Amino acid sequence: MKRYEALVQEIEGSIRKGVLRSGDRLPSVRSTGANRGFSASTVFQAYYLLEARGFIRARERSGYFVNSLNRNEPLPLETPSQPSSNPISVDICAQVFAILESTKSRDVVPFGSAFPSPLLFPLARLGRSMAQSAKSLDPWSTVDHLTPGNPDLRRQIALRYMADGMHVHMDEIVITNGALEALNLCLMAVTRPGDSVIVECPAFYGALQALELRGLKAIQVPTCPKEGLDLLNLEQTIELHKPAACWLMPNFQNPLGSTMSEAKKQALVEILAKHNVPLIEDDVYSELYFGDKRPLPAKAYDTTGLVMHCSSFSKCLAPGYRIGWAAPGRYVRQVTEAKLITTLATSAPGQRGLAAYLELGGYDKHLRKLRQTLSEQMAVFSQAVGHYFPAGTRATRPQGGYFLWVELPTGVDAMKVHAQALAENISVAPGPIFSPTHSFKNCLRLNFGHTWNDRSERALATLGKIASAC
Amino acid sequence: MKRYEALVQEIEGSIRKGVLRSGDRLPSVRSTGANRGFSASTVFQAYYLLEARGFIRARERSGYFVNSLNRNEPLPLETPSQPSSNPISVDICAQVFAILESTKSRDVVPFGSAFPSPLLFPLARLGRSMAQSAKSLDPWSTVDHLTPGNPDLRRQIALRYMADGMHVHMDEIVITNGALEALNLCLMAVTRPGDSVIVECPAFYGALQALELRGLKAIQVPTCPKEGLDLLNLEQTIELHKPAACWLMPNFQNPLGSTMSEAKKQALVEILAKHNVPLIEDDVYSELYFGDKRPLPAKAYDTTGLVMHCSSFSKCLAPGYRIGWAAPGRYVRQVTEAKLITTLATSAPGQRGLAAYLELGGYDKHLRKLRQTLSEQMAVFSQAVGHYFPAGTRATRPQGGYFLWVELPTGVDAMKVHAQALAENISVAPGPIFSPTHSFKNCLRLNFGHTWNDRSERALATLGKIASAC
Repeated sequence: MKRYEALVQEIEGSIRKGVLRSGDRLPSVRSTGANRGFSASTVFQAYYLLEARGFIRARERSGYFVNSLNRNEPLPLETPSQPSSNPISVDICAQVFAILESTKSRDVVPFGSAFPSPLLFPLARLGRSMAQSAKSLDPWSTVDHLTPGNPDLRRQIALRYMADGMHVHMDEIVITNGALEALNLCLMAVTRPGDSVIVECPAFYGALQALELRGLKAIQVPTCPKEGLDLLNLEQTIELHKPAACWLMPNFQNPLGSTMSEAKKQALVEILAKHNVPLIEDDVYSELYFGDKRPLPAKAYDTTGLVMHCSSFSKCLAPGYRIGWAAPGRYVRQVTEAKLITTLATSAPGQRGLAAYLELGGYDKHLRKLRQTLSEQMAVFSQAVGHYFPAGTRATRPQGGYFLWVELPTGVDAMKVHAQALAENISVAPGPIFSPTHSFKNCLRLNFGHTWNDRSERALATLGKIASAC
Repeated sequence: MKRYEALVQEIEGSIRKGVLRSGDRLPSVRSTGANRGFSASTVFQAYYLLEARGFIRARERSGYFVNSLNRNEPLPLETPSQPSSNPISVDICAQVFAILESTKSRDVVPFGSAFPSPLLFPLARLGRSMAQSAKSLDPWSTVDHLTPGNPDLRRQIALRYMADGMHVHMDEIVITNGALEALNLCLMAVTRPGDSVIVECPAFYGALQALELRGLKAIQVPTCPKEGLDLLNLEQTIELHKPAACWLMPNFQNPLGSTMSEAKKQALVEILAKHNVPLIEDDVYSELYFGDKRPLPAKAYDTTGLVMHCSSFSKCLAPGYRIGWAAPGRYVRQVTEAKLITTLATSAPGQRGLAAYLELGGYDKHLRKLRQTLSEQMAVFSQAVGHYFPAGTRATRPQGGYFLWVELPTGVDAMKVHAQALAENISVAPGPIFSPTHSFKNCLRLNFGHTWNDRSERALATLGKIASAC
């Protein structure tokens, strides 16, 4: 760690702990430098970064002051959701498409986006790996490396499981067009039209769309914003409705950011094994943890092959390459066959390029930097929400990923907020698209995975004003 | 054209027309050279190529003789198929997978393969375009060029339509993971589980698998090996069963190789318009014509937006890139949405690489060479079938693509032939996988898209022996 980074961390810690409070004046650059034996430029660099991250601000001729934002964390959101547990038909697609379509333009501030900023990814380095591997191609590999996919890439993925202490053989890994295809293939493997599938409440809208497309019913199980799924309710629901599968996100759930404890994930897997219900595990955010180590997937506790683990490189490394995978336990054959029928195989050059990048090393270094950036942006973003949003606003405090789930005061209409924000070129993901009952009417999912700057701060201020008036 | 090529063409023509017959001795290299003013090496090159293509053979010390193969064209296959026209559930997947799986090893002679030899493609040149474009990437393009896909690539595809006199706007084009995904998305757009879909008899097994996966019924319409679909029967079937869609291959049908005349394609489109039935048009082989010009797709005659045209680069340029497209007429929105739900987008680097290759020029030159090679291989392969297969064998004479459809004498069991051939490391695609009723019990689809050499000739001889004994 460089000197100025150590200084940033120290001051940021003091602000977070309340040792330094809003309005406090920081020691001058000169005196800090003299006290610590740092050059003025080192201290400047640290102050500059703290300012960019929103922790302090410079006042002309008077030095640096702790920003008021840090006193404005929104109220924590802790109440569990309380959905009805009846299987219901899903009719969400039209609404989701209308909203996603509206957020596509580059002119729109992307708080509603599902992707982090592409500027966070080592695309140049990846491009070089890609270029290198594109030039040296065995023609037969274009035929041989069809589904289940490029063996080098599958080996690299198996190695990453191994680093987490999991033993997933490369023969269990099927490369897919992103995690979304993996999840859909798993759904095809274990359900038939008319079946019921358990989802979280709120749930990732992509899961709801997949159910709708296949004529499946959704059963919602309550979740709590910190610890995720209510296991007691889950087991009762399973006994009552005999679902064909569960589609869950035990780690950094979208939109809540909640993560189940390891003990809870283990208990989840045991309940599902007892009732012989397959789990489609959407685990695309677990690399983006802010804590000490990566949370294990439920897959890590699986002894019966019922857990179908799905992930991808789209959120961490290569959006646009569309490379994900499924490790579908006992359903490998069914998933492989569903893939062969629907898209046949995943693009070979992208797989080769990614394998080459992973073999070169450097992915973990990139991930460390990415996690650091996202956790910093979370802190600033969260404080800004507290500062600019109406009193009574509650928000999650995710420990990974890049989504904040915000509950506006009762009565505020998130769909109205969405429409008015869009008129100001600001996108949000309104709560109603995260449940088949269009609940969460006063909630928003906000993406903090884009660089925090004046434009985003102004946009968040505008959004706060809109929310106050809606 | 080079001198030796002109000579090859001339001699080949004489053999085909019967001017030169089996066993005839060719003029000596020296006399041909002297007569025509060619160097000996030019004549040698021509004779060498004719020998490689199976038209002539050298006998030690006596010169070159016309090969016996050319007298052995198999009997033409001209009888139309006669399926029942009832909607039937499809149960073909398990059988197809068992057969495809068995043909995957590189040790197996790939007569059963669905792909031509990857050695026929300009993969090195394509790799250079890919490498070039991988190095210069706008990070935002990885997000912006999600579905419907890379605008440069869609523009290049629109230009190719235009070169055929068709006006398909790039906004109608959705880039997909190969044509198979395009076809599946179109099917999703216009059908619901339980619906009936009209297919050809015999049909591409991938179409049957797609119907099975989505719980759709198949209605077979008779085809004739030369002119394709029976339109009278088609219209009656539509009136009787009100199908939700047709999935057809008007050009170089798989497995028959049949192509509908332009007038017939126009009539087809009119019948479908009259009854308001959408057409999912699988047009992946039309670039591989042996005649003077590319047959137009049915799409060219569409005035109502009911024709959903699907094609790809997988058979002509880049197997393994998995890049295809749909131009789905009035169903663009539905196809786009189905794509967004199931695989979200197509791999960006592959799209960019292909666009760069197409912009560079040279694709048409490659295609001319590819067509020439395939048409030559068809001639040799077809003669070898006539030579080695049991008397009474009939075969199609495709005018494009790389499949020969062979009807063995009545009573020969293609599934037995398949099993015994596989024991000898030879794959075939047995007739029963090309219909939901497992008909065509004495038929085989053979791939002539791989280099004709001693190994393939020996394999075809073995196959002929097996067929004679089954």
